[in-house]
Amino acid sequence: MEELFHRRSARIGQAPGNLNHMGPARAEPVRITLMNYDAERLDEREVTTIDECHECMSASSVTWVNIDGVHDPSVLEKIGEKLNLHQLLLEDVAHTDQRPKLEDFEDRLYIVMRMLSVSRVEDDNDGEEFRVASEQISLVLGPTFVITFQEDAGDVFDPVRRRLRESKGKIRKMGPDYLTYALLDVVVDNYFTVLELFGDQAEELEEEVMENPSSETLRDVQHMKRALIQMRRTVWPLRDVLNVMIRGDSKLIRKPTIVFLRDVYDHTIRVVDIMESFREMVGGLLEIYLSTVSNRMNEVMKVLTVMATIFIPLTFIAGVYGMNFDNIPELHWPWGYWYVWGIMVLVGMVMLLYFRRKRWF
Amino acid sequence: MEELFHRRSARIGQAPGNLNHMGPARAEPVRITLMNYDAERLDEREVTTIDECHECMSASSVTWVNIDGVHDPSVLEKIGEKLNLHQLLLEDVAHTDQRPKLEDFEDRLYIVMRMLSVSRVEDDNDGEEFRVASEQISLVLGPTFVITFQEDAGDVFDPVRRRLRESKGKIRKMGPDYLTYALLDVVVDNYFTVLELFGDQAEELEEEVMENPSSETLRDVQHMKRALIQMRRTVWPLRDVLNVMIRGDSKLIRKPTIVFLRDVYDHTIRVVDIMESFREMVGGLLEIYLSTVSNRMNEVMKVLTVMATIFIPLTFIAGVYGMNFDNIPELHWPWGYWYVWGIMVLVGMVMLLYFRRKRWF
Amino acid sequence: MEELFHRRSARIGQAPGNLNHMGPARAEPVRITLMNYDAERLDEREVTTIDECHECMSASSVTWVNIDGVHDPSVLEKIGEKLNLHQLLLEDVAHTDQRPKLEDFEDRLYIVMRMLSVSRVEDDNDGEEFRVASEQISLVLGPTFVITFQEDAGDVFDPVRRRLRESKGKIRKMGPDYLTYALLDVVVDNYFTVLELFGDQAEELEEEVMENPSSETLRDVQHMKRALIQMRRTVWPLRDVLNVMIRGDSKLIRKPTIVFLRDVYDHTIRVVDIMESFREMVGGLLEIYLSTVSNRMNEVMKVLTVMATIFIPLTFIAGVYGMNFDNIPELHWPWGYWYVWGIMVLVGMVMLLYFRRKRWF
Amino acid sequence: MEELFHRRSARIGQAPGNLNHMGPARAEPVRITLMNYDAERLDEREVTTIDECHECMSASSVTWVNIDGVHDPSVLEKIGEKLNLHQLLLEDVAHTDQRPKLEDFEDRLYIVMRMLSVSRVEDDNDGEEFRVASEQISLVLGPTFVITFQEDAGDVFDPVRRRLRESKGKIRKMGPDYLTYALLDVVVDNYFTVLELFGDQAEELEEEVMENPSSETLRDVQHMKRALIQMRRTVWPLRDVLNVMIRGDSKLIRKPTIVFLRDVYDHTIRVVDIMESFREMVGGLLEIYLSTVSNRMNEVMKVLTVMATIFIPLTFIAGVYGMNFDNIPELHWPWGYWYVWGIMVLVGMVMLLYFRRKRWF
Amino acid sequence: MEELFHRRSARIGQAPGNLNHMGPARAEPVRITLMNYDAERLDEREVTTIDECHECMSASSVTWVNIDGVHDPSVLEKIGEKLNLHQLLLEDVAHTDQRPKLEDFEDRLYIVMRMLSVSRVEDDNDGEEFRVASEQISLVLGPTFVITFQEDAGDVFDPVRRRLRESKGKIRKMGPDYLTYALLDVVVDNYFTVLELFGDQAEELEEEVMENPSSETLRDVQHMKRALIQMRRTVWPLRDVLNVMIRGDSKLIRKPTIVFLRDVYDHTIRVVDIMESFREMVGGLLEIYLSTVSNRMNEVMKVLTVMATIFIPLTFIAGVYGMNFDNIPELHWPWGYWYVWGIMVLVGMVMLLYFRRKRWF
Repeated sequence: MEELFHRRSARIGQAPGNLNHMGPARAEPVRITLMNYDAERLDEREVTTIDECHECMSASSVTWVNIDGVHDPSVLEKIGEKLNLHQLLLEDVAHTDQRPKLEDFEDRLYIVMRMLSVSRVEDDNDGEEFRVASEQISLVLGPTFVITFQEDAGDVFDPVRRRLRESKGKIRKMGPDYLTYALLDVVVDNYFTVLELFGDQAEELEEEVMENPSSETLRDVQHMKRALIQMRRTVWPLRDVLNVMIRGDSKLIRKPTIVFLRDVYDHTIRVVDIMESFREMVGGLLEIYLSTVSNRMNEVMKVLTVMATIFIPLTFIAGVYGMNFDNIPELHWPWGYWYVWGIMVLVGMVMLLYFRRKRWF
Repeated sequence: MEELFHRRSARIGQAPGNLNHMGPARAEPVRITLMNYDAERLDEREVTTIDECHECMSASSVTWVNIDGVHDPSVLEKIGEKLNLHQLLLEDVAHTDQRPKLEDFEDRLYIVMRMLSVSRVEDDNDGEEFRVASEQISLVLGPTFVITFQEDAGDVFDPVRRRLRESKGKIRKMGPDYLTYALLDVVVDNYFTVLELFGDQAEELEEEVMENPSSETLRDVQHMKRALIQMRRTVWPLRDVLNVMIRGDSKLIRKPTIVFLRDVYDHTIRVVDIMESFREMVGGLLEIYLSTVSNRMNEVMKVLTVMATIFIPLTFIAGVYGMNFDNIPELHWPWGYWYVWGIMVLVGMVMLLYFRRKRWF
Repeated sequence: MEELFHRRSARIGQAPGNLNHMGPARAEPVRITLMNYDAERLDEREVTTIDECHECMSASSVTWVNIDGVHDPSVLEKIGEKLNLHQLLLEDVAHTDQRPKLEDFEDRLYIVMRMLSVSRVEDDNDGEEFRVASEQISLVLGPTFVITFQEDAGDVFDPVRRRLRESKGKIRKMGPDYLTYALLDVVVDNYFTVLELFGDQAEELEEEVMENPSSETLRDVQHMKRALIQMRRTVWPLRDVLNVMIRGDSKLIRKPTIVFLRDVYDHTIRVVDIMESFREMVGGLLEIYLSTVSNRMNEVMKVLTVMATIFIPLTFIAGVYGMNFDNIPELHWPWGYWYVWGIMVLVGMVMLLYFRRKRWF
Repeated sequence: MEELFHRRSARIGQAPGNLNHMGPARAEPVRITLMNYDAERLDEREVTTIDECHECMSASSVTWVNIDGVHDPSVLEKIGEKLNLHQLLLEDVAHTDQRPKLEDFEDRLYIVMRMLSVSRVEDDNDGEEFRVASEQISLVLGPTFVITFQEDAGDVFDPVRRRLRESKGKIRKMGPDYLTYALLDVVVDNYFTVLELFGDQAEELEEEVMENPSSETLRDVQHMKRALIQMRRTVWPLRDVLNVMIRGDSKLIRKPTIVFLRDVYDHTIRVVDIMESFREMVGGLLEIYLSTVSNRMNEVMKVLTVMATIFIPLTFIAGVYGMNFDNIPELHWPWGYWYVWGIMVLVGMVMLLYFRRKRWF
Repeated sequence: MEELFHRRSARIGQAPGNLNHMGPARAEPVRITLMNYDAERLDEREVTTIDECHECMSASSVTWVNIDGVHDPSVLEKIGEKLNLHQLLLEDVAHTDQRPKLEDFEDRLYIVMRMLSVSRVEDDNDGEEFRVASEQISLVLGPTFVITFQEDAGDVFDPVRRRLRESKGKIRKMGPDYLTYALLDVVVDNYFTVLELFGDQAEELEEEVMENPSSETLRDVQHMKRALIQMRRTVWPLRDVLNVMIRGDSKLIRKPTIVFLRDVYDHTIRVVDIMESFREMVGGLLEIYLSTVSNRMNEVMKVLTVMATIFIPLTFIAGVYGMNFDNIPELHWPWGYWYVWGIMVLVGMVMLLYFRRKRWF
């Protein structure tokens, strides 16, 4: 159940603003990439210090700084200082177990969202397990810049980078709020991919539950259920984040962008919708599992009962004439043996008819 | 479970405003029909280019353009340009996996709704499957026109066309908002037809579950449940759409029309109401299924137990006197055989009385 | 499941304002009764045309027109014309599958409520079935008149008529809003009667489920459940209707009447309250049913197991000494037979003690 | 299920203001006690007519009239007349099946609450049944007086009387609103007592369900559940009553009293809280019951299977060598008998090992 | 079930303001520690009378008085008098069964929260039991001071004390509202620790339920469930408390502190979130338990059926040729014995094939 929460007991009672990364230790250095653009030009490069970023920011261009890795407190501190970010904001960037949320620091909008990725790992019993992992993505929107933080180097934002380079659509003509929209959009689109995997898995499971249920199936249903719980915890709060954004209270989000955010909001609703349908279906799988098992037991019982009920009286009859009394007249009848066979066949037939009438086979 | 979501992974990270149709490719050309009317006259024809439509629009008449097929991006683009529609609106028209929704672009009202159709297809196991399909219908309401988009050519709007031609009721005397009402009304009426089919199917299933439950029945219950989930996803949001419309915030909807929209809203509530009743009933079917199976197993067990319990001691007695000890005095009693029969009949009777008292048969 | 919805597919796409009655065709003529009263006098008669009613309406007296039967469109049309009723109102009167609702047409208040009646019909399996039927009652409140529409001639309003005739309480001194209150009150009181029948039936069912559950019981529980769903669909919306009325937005409802309406509202809440308690109890019955069946199966299993487990080893021993080997020394022991009996009694005692310790009997 | 509702069919269609008592007929006379006090003095006595009460009411002192018994309409009418109470208020006092509620008649505040009492009665099956009874307590708060109505003479208010006599706390220094608070407080404290009994009973039941479940246990769980439903119907509405009171809309409730009412409100929340926890626990008992029964059946099955599976093949072997063929060579082997014993022991051992490996015993 | 409520029947009808401690009697004396600090200096000491505390309070410094033990009414009374606390506040401090809540006495803010601690105690059946205990912590925030009350001497606030001593972060530079924040923060962090223990336990239980379910497991699941109910009752109301605090209605909470309180609020939401996930998972465990038991029973049944069904007909055949009729021709066939063996082997094989086809083993 570890995927449902991060351990954080180590942090009890610490002063706020502590920027030590929570989670597995990482060795690779933090990687900072910079894109500075306006409608005419695009300056893209990898930088080593945050100062470089700060220099090229200007009121007339949009600067997007992407930071892969949040495990180096010194980098975070530097950024916080240069860009005037609240210490609690930085703490939330570093502690990557946040729920998606929006915090409005007036001239900074801080958005936490989570990427989902699905993998199938082999479990202890030689089966496959369906596992959902999630990575925290923090985004800071300022008047002329967007800063994104990822836990790992990843290619999730590549489609946006491509659109910036190729100047597709109006992305280069619009401000950092539109860039924020574009980044949110790819994250939400990622959820659809995850849902498709869920759908395939759910279909497989349903087939299995109906055709050939085993305790392994049960375990898979349980994992699926848990993965859906986890996904819900990722998507529901994002819906609220977007809802707040489209209400338009922040002056950092301009009106023409809101209609686009509303579109992302619609997508989130759709994700929630499909997710809830999956939850209902998966919830029903357990009931079907129980029904199928019950059904099979019933069938097994019928076979046993039919066999036992037919042969038990016959065996009794055979037993009677196996007794060694001195004086069993039937034993000496000339056709006695055949009479007994006749009785036994008769008894058997009556039983069979009875079961046939009860539609037991 | 495919009916619960469309695959859209191909779309990740695309710029908004992409008008490529999502869904199975289609070959047939897009068909555009035009109705232009006021109280006195009605001009109905099929057109080939959108320019023809645009020409005949005027402030004093109502123009209804119906477009069958949303798979041709060039047509959509042309319409968008001529009628000044937002690119996100066009995108939603083309991507036919929208939830019902209303978007207010001030001088344009964009409504998405979904037609439902039920079919029974043969499934793998030679049974019949109950399947609900849904088709997206987009409607754009402007000051003097209504544009409707359907995925397939269909006759769902024919009753409205007839009323326009025959000038029945006041439809010809009122504006495009009343036309919108009439179109919404036929869509909601269509839901009642679907509900009737659900009702018949549910009744059949209930009979089957109580009389003769099989794993096939279980599968049918599951499909019914899923179909209801899908239907709910279609109807609930439409209710919200109508609720927004009757609040009367948009100046495109005039006051006299609102009382009619309220009527459609009432119908939607009624659909929701019946749907939820069905959901409760179908949810109960599984429990009844389990009970029935349990009951049958109980009956099977009783038969087995009665038979085994009566004959097992009798067979034991027969076994005892089948032993070959040199010295079994009973064997040599003159009436020994009949005594044993007496004992066996006695034992059998006692057992029968015991079971009768327990009301096992 | 027919009681859960009316078939209305025939109505698709019709223009609003269609007054053809939905439901089984009726032959009997529409019956119109009129009561015109003020504090001093009461004029009660049966009329044939609606014009007669219209004539005797005056600003200083209250007129109550009761119409039994809504299947004659011409009557409805006439009333609509004379009293200036909206066509959608008339349509809702004629289509008797409405949910309880209130519609405010400013100088007319339109209230739909439903009478419930319970009957026990014989079902296919020679059992009795508990069935709830509901009849739509429409009420139009105007400044000086109240019009009520019933589907069938019925005596539900008789207590109010009696109070009017006997001038009991202040009913004759107050306006049409107080009359509306009195009519609503008898309808809600009718729900209590229905609830009492439910209570008796539920008690019987509970007894049956615990004492002697059969598949017939299960069917009864299911019917009870459905009847409660149906009742809820009747009562919940009425609660909302009353809630709107006591908010006092309509000028047709005078302040002194509101305190009485609040009383009816309280009664409705109480009906809802009791209904929900019943729903919980009936929902629990299925679980008890399953438990009882489970329990009985357990008991059956125990009997089988005790019998089989005791006699199977004994029969085996008897079988061993029934073998025909040349050389079974025990067979020739002088007390061999009695030794074997000793062993068999011992084995049986041990088994019995074991089961006793397990508390199986 | 009678405790869930009062029969009231007799009341249909009666004019409002009917003061006939609903419920079992009572013979004992109505008892009226009066306490008239201010900070300095306390006048306590039993009176026979309501006029006596009315006389000693004054603007500077607080008068508390307690009336035991609401079955005498003439007393109620007299009080109503003297103290100017609305007829619907008096009706609700007399009809003792009200839900807790607050009604604000501007210069009168009418509060209905319900006392709970728990008793264990012997049921039909020689067991004990847990039953909750409730008694309606009506309270009218006026500017200088409080009137309380109880169905039966009872000592529930004795602690308040004692505090008044002993002038403990500030009760004598404050107005009738504080007295109302004190009375509400003892009623809510009474709920805690009931909850404690519930807790004891629930604990007992849980033990029983896990250790030794019988159908009697099931019945007890069901009764417990019903008692909790009934209690919820008593407590939830009282919470709303208190919520309205602490909002402070009525001028009859002075500000310093509100903080005390907030305290009672907190207690009510706590009662609700504990009650809901109980409901969850009791709801879980049924599931545990089913699990325990299932578990036991499993154990029974295992014993049966182990015994049958071991002895059935052995009995078969013995049967084979009990056949009377002329020509069974094994029968004549010198050690044949012992060989067969060897085989039988071997088969038995293999079976035992198999079951041991499956951990069946 | 005792952990779900405190017994409080002894308190019925007492006047408010009674400061006698509820709960087990305690002997140890109340311990009072004082911290008085501003940015420059920190005065920490243990005091014996409350007067000492009162003396050193000043407008320019923050005073934190921590009181271990609430069982001495005289201490509480003294504090109440010196610091002008409402009698109901003091009563709630003494009666340690409060729900978390916030009460605003304008110049005093009274916060109740509850610490959780988990312990594993040995239960009656030699197993371990998972038990959650909770301790009430009361906090009074004044303009220049914070007073905390704990039931037992405990080290929960030690991290805050350390931060004060080491002047870590800005805690020494800010007011008593920030101190309140810091104290709330350690309490909420404590919940995460409890959740981790829950997570470990839940994981263990899940493993056990799937691998080796026993009635002991069932009991543990039940305890886990109850512990989660209890935890929810502790955390949910705290969330509401924090929600009220960050709304900023009280002038005792300065604006810069609110952003920190929002952070604690976020943590609480996260606790709730994880808790609800656990609840869903644990709720599912019972279903899996039932499935696993069902599965096992099915397996047991199959073994029984396979064995019985194969050998019952064979034993019958052997019985037939054990009969002692004078005239059984087969007995005298030279190869009769071997023919019978042949038939028996054949019957056995057919059965085996049948079961194999049914995939029973």
